[in-house]
Amino acid sequence: MPATIDNQISFLNEIDKLKNIIRKSPLTDRSRRENSAEHSWHLAMYALILSDHSDRAINMDRVIRMLLIHDIVEIDAGDHPLHETVDTDKQDKLERDAADRIFGLLPEFQVESLRNLWIEFEAGESDDAIFAKALDRLQPLIQNVATGGGTWNEAAVTHQQVQKRYGITIQKGSTALWEHAGNLVSDHFKN
Amino acid sequence: MPATIDNQISFLNEIDKLKNIIRKSPLTDRSRRENSAEHSWHLAMYALILSDHSDRAINMDRVIRMLLIHDIVEIDAGDHPLHETVDTDKQDKLERDAADRIFGLLPEFQVESLRNLWIEFEAGESDDAIFAKALDRLQPLIQNVATGGGTWNEAAVTHQQVQKRYGITIQKGSTALWEHAGNLVSDHFKN
Repeated sequence: MPATIDNQISFLNEIDKLKNIIRKSPLTDRSRRENSAEHSWHLAMYALILSDHSDRAINMDRVIRMLLIHDIVEIDAGDHPLHETVDTDKQDKLERDAADRIFGLLPEFQVESLRNLWIEFEAGESDDAIFAKALDRLQPLIQNVATGGGTWNEAAVTHQQVQKRYGITIQKGSTALWEHAGNLVSDHFKN
Repeated sequence: MPATIDNQISFLNEIDKLKNIIRKSPLTDRSRRENSAEHSWHLAMYALILSDHSDRAINMDRVIRMLLIHDIVEIDAGDHPLHETVDTDKQDKLERDAADRIFGLLPEFQVESLRNLWIEFEAGESDDAIFAKALDRLQPLIQNVATGGGTWNEAAVTHQQVQKRYGITIQKGSTALWEHAGNLVSDHFKN
């Protein structure tokens, strides 16, 4: 038992580093950029509040768990912003290695279940993962709209690019949320 | 439906402010103090990893939800650090008003369930709330140990005060976690 708790606390101490992984997205008050730990909290809250809008039957609590852990690999692999080109194969390898190392800090009975939950999110094929991925696009979209453009201004992103980079993923999870968000985006680009 | 999503997004935008509520507790790398949004994420992860150690039968997912929302009232009421004296009646009133205002931004069907979950956490009487409160004490204790004292050094907190201010609440939720944490605390104060 004590060895188990030791491992668990080591993992919980290690993931403290997610608080220093800085994303491109701004806070809504524009005071600074968001970090991946508080982003993960915000996304879990998105799931808690918006799950009724999923087009598929989902398990909200699994979606929450998935979103809580979805960015932990960034501790080793870094955040790869949506509007930058990345070497996908290289990034995938970095993230898989990160998952092995970081979830590997846990006691054996927990390693696989958490790593598999992360793999499920990454694959984006299960109903829960499809909705989780929709929220992971919706939240930065909302932060960008709330700040008058956010990362779209910085990267000179067009209306059409937003529809492609956010819309497809959001709509796949929730017609209603994309209908709402798409209108916000149209209003933003009109102004 | 669109009105509902409007209200939900207003709430989700409002709680972005929790990312700017700064706690006394340090990050484990001592680079800065923790904010209440990333603290809430970390606590939800504590619940995901440590729930087997609860002395009572709990619903882990309810504990996670409770911890995700437990500090939202701080947006209006502020954080009240453990080692400072507060006017409890005044603080309670501030927090109740904050819960009314902030959860009140949600569509009616969600207001009561979230506010009641927060009230349950605050009361600390249900099995889920007892364990959630134990984790809410355990996490800053672990951050303090990991940083060689953290808020205990700043406030000249003694070994006995730690046992009283953290130990009672942690032990009430989990004998095993307090056995482990109590040893960490003893080692800390020996050195």
